[in-house]
Amino acid sequence: MTTQPDTRGRAAAATIFVCTTCRRKRADRPEGYDLPGVGLAAALAEEILRQGLAELTVIPVACLAVCRRPCTVAFAAPGKWTHLVGDLDADAHVADIVATALAVARSEDGIVPWVERPQSIKSGGLARVPPLGS
Amino acid sequence: MTTQPDTRGRAAAATIFVCTTCRRKRADRPEGYDLPGVGLAAALAEEILRQGLAELTVIPVACLAVCRRPCTVAFAAPGKWTHLVGDLDADAHVADIVATALAVARSEDGIVPWVERPQSIKSGGLARVPPLGS
Repeated sequence: MTTQPDTRGRAAAATIFVCTTCRRKRADRPEGYDLPGVGLAAALAEEILRQGLAELTVIPVACLAVCRRPCTVAFAAPGKWTHLVGDLDADAHVADIVATALAVARSEDGIVPWVERPQSIKSGGLARVPPLGS
Repeated sequence: MTTQPDTRGRAAAATIFVCTTCRRKRADRPEGYDLPGVGLAAALAEEILRQGLAELTVIPVACLAVCRRPCTVAFAAPGKWTHLVGDLDADAHVADIVATALAVARSEDGIVPWVERPQSIKSGGLARVPPLGS
């Protein structure tokens, strides 16, 4: 247990990494795609500010290397499991993502009980990784 | 940068998480599948011991939640990017996985240059997540 991060005092925080590189097919665009993660990151930051959720941080990331399931996000917190979720819509799923990040922040180990996950988070699940030192 | 882990003095270490829950279809088994991650974790630990690579740690994990691309592993190190890789063969890819873990351990940020990745690690790439505090 020597490498387990000390999460006391910061156990209620969580970070949402948002991939801004995922391409979404858009027949109406000359280039044939857009980058919905850019708008999703902005919408999440705005919603977190609106709700006054100082425990949540949004970090746009140039590439989570999933690619085929935009938008993709990762929920991470010190000393907890990290979760990757894809197939998220930049408009429809902002509330689901914020609620899940809050649940991760308030959880003991980063694992949100299945029944408490919004449908978009359940169906978009890609992977999870335990914390180092767990 | 206040949450950036201090990696000085331990930058040369890396952990390989191995999913032991992934099911691989096996027509020759009465249950129709086996759990190749169990054998992969054992083979990796044996190879690391054989090579005397004290900087690498293998941790079997009950479920990385990828499921459809066994075997799945994650490469992780303090303060570095974490990488998830699937479609790995428990027999054929032990050397590739150990070489990649060593490259992660010796890298600055956990990102192994594309040209230095074994083919199995390239083609099995699932996702990556930045470190908290990056």
